[in-house]
Amino acid sequence: MQVLVEPVARLMEELARLPGIGPKTSARLVFHLLRVPAEQVYALADALRDLRARTRFCSICFNITDVDPCAICSDPNRDRSIICVVEEPLDVLAIERTREYHGLYHVLHGTLSPVEGIGPDDLHIAELLPRLRAEVPVREVIIATNPNMEGEATAMYLARRLAGSGVKITRLARGLPVGGDLEYADQVTLSRALAGRQAME
Amino acid sequence: MQVLVEPVARLMEELARLPGIGPKTSARLVFHLLRVPAEQVYALADALRDLRARTRFCSICFNITDVDPCAICSDPNRDRSIICVVEEPLDVLAIERTREYHGLYHVLHGTLSPVEGIGPDDLHIAELLPRLRAEVPVREVIIATNPNMEGEATAMYLARRLAGSGVKITRLARGLPVGGDLEYADQVTLSRALAGRQAME
Repeated sequence: MQVLVEPVARLMEELARLPGIGPKTSARLVFHLLRVPAEQVYALADALRDLRARTRFCSICFNITDVDPCAICSDPNRDRSIICVVEEPLDVLAIERTREYHGLYHVLHGTLSPVEGIGPDDLHIAELLPRLRAEVPVREVIIATNPNMEGEATAMYLARRLAGSGVKITRLARGLPVGGDLEYADQVTLSRALAGRQAME
Repeated sequence: MQVLVEPVARLMEELARLPGIGPKTSARLVFHLLRVPAEQVYALADALRDLRARTRFCSICFNITDVDPCAICSDPNRDRSIICVVEEPLDVLAIERTREYHGLYHVLHGTLSPVEGIGPDDLHIAELLPRLRAEVPVREVIIATNPNMEGEATAMYLARRLAGSGVKITRLARGLPVGGDLEYADQVTLSRALAGRQAME
């Protein structure tokens, strides 16, 4: 006989498709959702639906937005002469949280990965080039891809692609994480921190 | 300025209300859900809605069901002379998976907990008593609450409440978990395993 009623089995299955949620977590979530007020479950269902029904990607920077162009691209107070290139929308969020950056963004939606067959045409790279010749000329492109192999390869590719455009290309500093412990830093990070050492004022 | 568009912020908030999902996991899930085909997100939203719209609790055993009485309570092949009392619907699932039990269930929906103010009237205990005098008389009630303090207290309370009914009351065996290591067993489990030692055939 069938042990689980269909709606329970189906939700467990759908939840288990999410990253980091195995069959056990999925079961626990379902039985939690059976206990909370139904309104909370309906609110979650509606929020999921709205995530895809009410958002799109900005046609300029490819960040997630509910209006096109997005709030950052259409904000007259942002510095339009500087573009920060990131891998994912989550990276925009991380940089915005610093409150230190006031320029525009460009979201690639991934990194180059020959292993997975992801080439330049699979990322929003072509769309970056015309942005350099906008009304307000761009003077700097900060490449803020992740400090790992794919991120570095993508940064190198972008730097070559943008060379000759007359725009200054920079990369986020690599070094010891603030609050970190020198003793626990990996060799590569420590080497980078040494190579990039700065004069104290 | 608002960094996150409303649908993204709202879904992050709703996901973060789930147990074991903090703000970071929630953000990662949202950005995953932005990348997968929209159909997968809509399927998850529908499954969530159906979980509450299309299930209820069985009026006999209080397990989750889509029909009332549930498939187990109305199955003519189940042994109606034995009832297994569990804390949660998830426990029914665990016992069914053993394929060793063919009786009926009774789901309490919790345990006694004076600290949290949960008394006998907050659990489905009163509904268990009339079940003992059904058409097919019940000859055994297996108390399968969890082997922890609340579960034990609830088992003790139930045993007292059912005493004098003429029904045999049993409790799941406590002992070393199969595949476990004696060296790592806690004192209480080891004491129980010793006290409950069985003659080898």
